[in-house]
This record gives sequence, C-alpha cells and structure tokens, in this order.
Amino acid sequence: MPSLPDGTGLPSTHPLVDGRTATSPLIDAYRARTPRRRPVWFMRQAGRSLPEYRESRAGTAMLEACLTPPLAAEITLQPVRRHDVDAGIFFSDIVVPLKLAGVDVRIEPGVGPVFGTAHRTAAEVDRLVTEHPAESLDEDALAPITEAVRLTVAELGSTPLIGFAGAPFTLAAYLVEGRPSRDHLAARALMHGDPQTWARLTAWAADVAGRFLRAQVLAGASAVQLFDSWAGSLSLDNYLRSVAPASHRTLSHVADLGVPRVHFGTGTGELLAAMRDVGADVVGVDDRIALDEAVRRLDGRVPVQGNIDPALLAAPWPVLEAHVRDVVARGAVAPGHVVNLGHGVPPTTDPDVLTRVVSLIHSIED
Amino acid sequence: MPSLPDGTGLPSTHPLVDGRTATSPLIDAYRARTPRRRPVWFMRQAGRSLPEYRESRAGTAMLEACLTPPLAAEITLQPVRRHDVDAGIFFSDIVVPLKLAGVDVRIEPGVGPVFGTAHRTAAEVDRLVTEHPAESLDEDALAPITEAVRLTVAELGSTPLIGFAGAPFTLAAYLVEGRPSRDHLAARALMHGDPQTWARLTAWAADVAGRFLRAQVLAGASAVQLFDSWAGSLSLDNYLRSVAPASHRTLSHVADLGVPRVHFGTGTGELLAAMRDVGADVVGVDDRIALDEAVRRLDGRVPVQGNIDPALLAAPWPVLEAHVRDVVARGAVAPGHVVNLGHGVPPTTDPDVLTRVVSLIHSIED
Repeated sequence: MPSLPDGTGLPSTHPLVDGRTATSPLIDAYRARTPRRRPVWFMRQAGRSLPEYRESRAGTAMLEACLTPPLAAEITLQPVRRHDVDAGIFFSDIVVPLKLAGVDVRIEPGVGPVFGTAHRTAAEVDRLVTEHPAESLDEDALAPITEAVRLTVAELGSTPLIGFAGAPFTLAAYLVEGRPSRDHLAARALMHGDPQTWARLTAWAADVAGRFLRAQVLAGASAVQLFDSWAGSLSLDNYLRSVAPASHRTLSHVADLGVPRVHFGTGTGELLAAMRDVGADVVGVDDRIALDEAVRRLDGRVPVQGNIDPALLAAPWPVLEAHVRDVVARGAVAPGHVVNLGHGVPPTTDPDVLTRVVSLIHSIED
Repeated sequence: MPSLPDGTGLPSTHPLVDGRTATSPLIDAYRARTPRRRPVWFMRQAGRSLPEYRESRAGTAMLEACLTPPLAAEITLQPVRRHDVDAGIFFSDIVVPLKLAGVDVRIEPGVGPVFGTAHRTAAEVDRLVTEHPAESLDEDALAPITEAVRLTVAELGSTPLIGFAGAPFTLAAYLVEGRPSRDHLAARALMHGDPQTWARLTAWAADVAGRFLRAQVLAGASAVQLFDSWAGSLSLDNYLRSVAPASHRTLSHVADLGVPRVHFGTGTGELLAAMRDVGADVVGVDDRIALDEAVRRLDGRVPVQGNIDPALLAAPWPVLEAHVRDVVARGAVAPGHVVNLGHGVPPTTDPDVLTRVVSLIHSIED
C-alpha cells in the first residue's frame, strides 16, 4: 500500500499542508528524503524520567492526565523543550480510546490497565462490541484528544507531532485477560480456540484505534505511530493469520490522509516485513537486532526508526557514545533513518544523558 | 564440543551406566537414536498445575521445599506418576545454588527472587565472589540436592531424571538487579559499561550453576537442562560476546560425564545455533518459531525439544490435537525430537489435558 502524497485529505491549516512541518527533518526522513539534520526522538520521552513530568502529574491519575487537554499538551511538550528532539509524541495511553468508547477500564499504578471484566467468551465479546460500537468514538467523544492535539501543535510550531495508538492485538490481549499478563495466554487461547470471536474483537479494536489515530491527525499530528507492544510474543504464522489483518485495518483509517505511518513492537525481529506489509511507511526496530540486519530483512524498501539499547543510557558516556555512533552508521544503509531507542525511556534515566545523546546525533556528519 | 559416550566418568551405580535409563526413549531421542516411543515431558510439569503439588507445598516456602529432600523428590515424581511422561525434571529453583553458596536470597510469593543486596558495582561483585566462592558449593553444601536426587532416581526406575540449573546470564541478571525485572536494564548496563566486572560475575555464576548440575548428575540424573530464561532479551552479538562464554563454562562442568546437555530459553529464535555452540547436545525451542525452521537454523545437527504453544492447552481439544500433530510432524526433520511445551506449564492448566496430550503423543505413528 504505497502512501499518498503528503497531506492528501488534510485541512489547509494542518501543519503538513501549511508548510510548518512538511520539510521538517522527521518528515523528510520518514519520506526517504534527505533531512537537513539527522532526526531523533525517544519513545516514552514524555514521562517519568523528567522531573517536570512528575511535578505535572502529581496528584493526577494517568487516565485523567491523558484526558485533560492542557495537561496532556504540556506533558507532550516538555521533552521537546528540554532535549531539542525532532518530534513530539502525543502523551496518551493505549487504553484511552477504549475509555472514550465507554469501556470500564482504569490504570492501577504499578500494575497497568485493569478492566471491570475480562472478555474471554463469544458472549462477552458480543456484549463489548454491541454496547460500545466503534462509531461511538465520534467527534464529541474524541474532543479531549482533538483539543489536546490542537494545543500541542500550536506550541510545537515547526516540530511535528506524532500521533499515538496501541495496535489491535495489544488492545485485545488486555481486553481478553482483563489486566496485564506476562504471556497473554487467555488471549492466545481465544485466538486459536475461537478464531471468529477473535476476529470480531480485533476488528472492533482496530476501528477504535483507527478512529483515535485519525482524530489526532485531523487535529494536527504530522505522522502516526502504531505500537504493537506484544506482537513479538507471536510466531510469524500466528501474526500473519491472527493479527496482521486487524493492524492493516487500523492503519487504513488514516491511509487517505497522507501522513507517514510508523509501526513498532519489541522482539519483532522475525516480524519486520510482515509489520511493514500491514501498511506501514516506516518500521520501528528494537535493540535485539542490528539495524543494518533489520534493513536487510525489510529489503531496504522503507525507512527505519531505532534502535539505541536503552540499557546503554546507564553506561559510561564513552560506551554509550560508541553505541550511538554504531547505530547511526548501521542506519545509513536504510532509505531513511530516524534515530530512537529500541524501547521506551527507562524511568530511571538521567534526562541530561538524553539531551547529550540528541546533541551527539545532531552533530554526527554523514 | 562433541559429547562423550554415554556415562563416561559416572559411577557404576548410575542409571545411565547400570542400564536403567540408557535406552529410555528420552535418552535415545537426545542421542539421535530411534526411541521405542516418542518421548515427551513438560517444562514446569512439577508445579502449580497439580493439586497434589499444591497440597504438598501447603505451608512450605519455595526454597524450603527445594531444600527438603523427601519433599523435592515427591514433587519431582508427581507428574511422572500422573501423566506417564518420559522424564522427571528435578524440582528446584534457579536461585537454589546461590542460596547454598550462602547468598542472601529469598523467594517472595508473587514476586520472585529477592536478594538482600543488589550487585551493581565492581566492589559489590568483588564482595559476592570473595565471600561466597564457588568452591563453597562442596559435597556438604550440596547434600540436600544429592539426597533429593537419590531419592527421586530410586523411585523413577527406568524413567530418567533431568537435572536443572539456571544459566549464568539469568542468574547474573537477578544478582545485578537484586530482584526480578522486566528488562534487566541494570544487568545490561553493567555488561556494557564494565565488561570486566560482568565477566567476573558471570564466570562465578557459571561455576555455581555448573557445580549444581554436576552434583545432580553424579547423584543419578541422566541428562541436564540449562535454562537461560532471559537470553532472548539480547541481540546475537551481545549474547556471543557477553553470555556464551559463561554458558559454555557451566556446561563444561559436566562435559566429562557423558550425559546429554539440553539448553533452552524463550524468544531465542535468533540465538539457537549460538546456544548449541556453547556445548549443548540438544536445543530447546520455544513456540515463537516453527520447529522445522528451528531445525534448519541448527543445520539439522542436533536433536530438538519443544515446542507446543502453552496457550493452546486452554483451547478446545480438536484445536490442541491438530497443533500437537503439527509440532510432531515438523519435529520429524530433526535427528531427534523430544516433545515438550515451548515454555512452562501455565499454573491454570487442567492436568487432565496434559495427560491426554502425553497419550496422544505416544499414540502418533511415524
């Protein structure tokens, strides 16, 4: 599915259309054009590693923070101001669109998303998709998202905002289990044991995530990233049969808008080409595979994003610097490379190290 | 490192020498000989899925159970009696040899191993290896293990017992972090940031695990399995540089005894050949990779073990049966195949399903 030209289908005031972000380093690299500087941002850059984040969040629950537009905008902007990164990533959580669709979910600190009920049977899935149709994620329901994106984009100026959503498999895994689990066994049992119910659940999750992404783009996001946190727990066969169709469905929701679509998961060395083929223009690569090997597995056809090992952020600077330079060198074989971590910023990271990494990356000559 | 002939260096009363297990289906398959029936056992078969286990363990802490020989033997024997599996796997925990070496560690229910202190600096590692030399794991210290293995093997008769140990990387990851962690970031930071200290720590862990394995073999275990639970979190480069030497060192501790050495980790599709090359005679394969593809990556040179998807144990029987038959068919391209799960038995598994799977596997004609 080749991408449409930049900005097709977007309002004339969108930053990709009015010129603010169309030739930004991030968008140029995502489009396989030569950027004027090497772009970098960090997954989970808006979060617990920053003291200003901890201060902003104090006393506010996670989902409440995500749904309070000025706060979500402020948190999204903090790392851009601090680190001089080349993109903001919209501060949200993968369960936010479920919450907006009326699903009973809360985020327990130290645990993660906990649902009022698990969804393990055909009847439970039927109730979920009937009582909370994806269409209920309409303009009104999505207003807190739209508003937060507008506030963010107005502040970001020429720095692009990347929209955020969790992929249908990861959403469905949470919904089936009813809470975080290490192995997603109940979800995988449903996937194999009742493929029709699984397909119904993931198609619903795909539409929910797709509408969530589309709202962010229409409100001003210049790219999107679909996170399939747990795809790496599946074999390629299972991924292709039980997950790829729904991920394709999510990305189709923004296909007519002409924004770069990035797709990422951890432990996905065996799935990279399959994740590209669901409609991604850019593939994120974790740190378990060398970046040049990832490019090879992708046949060099798409730009890549990654893949600094987050563990190295705590290593002595010369070790980290050598690693960053190695990642940049390996990324040079791709048609485009946006530097990032191979996973999210660890909460214990010294923010000054991140700033120094950005500065290093911007200083490396081709 | 080719294996020595069966039973080299073992006492004449060892089951592999006196004939009890030398031609058992398990050992035949591990030795790439044709077994009289297709062997199967399950990782974590001795554990929470069995009501008799929960009854035996009631009121006894995990490490206490591991170090009480009659109880450890009873728990090891329970799944063999119940399921007619082709091997017992010694009931223990990867931190048991650390505990026997005097390290301050306990297992917190619902959390996992928690150490009195983390080991993140050169000084902390120095103190650990100086105060608890691997040599302190002598005959006396290992007596509870030796005794439990003897009791078990006496009951098992012609069914072989597989010895158990955690690999040095997994042990070191726990020691550095001081407790379970999802990403082992502190361990990986030490690995890269201070390779000399990392090498010292993993060499020590290798000797501790190696002595633990050797005691089990000398007391009657007919094979060993080295579990590197977390190896799959590493890239191949990191594995080869920072982990493989220590795993080789562990397996060298039993190289002169001529017992089959199995090596297993999850998410190790990219590491299979490297894990073979540390001295494994058999490689365990998780469920994220098709078994015939794993055999291909191993150049068909060693028998394999695996790789039923544990999630399927909760699926309707026809789905599970088809999957088991598929695994068996794919395993036929290997020089030997011991059927197992791709990961441990989930605690919620219906034990009757496991028994039925064993019966199915034993019934499948070539």
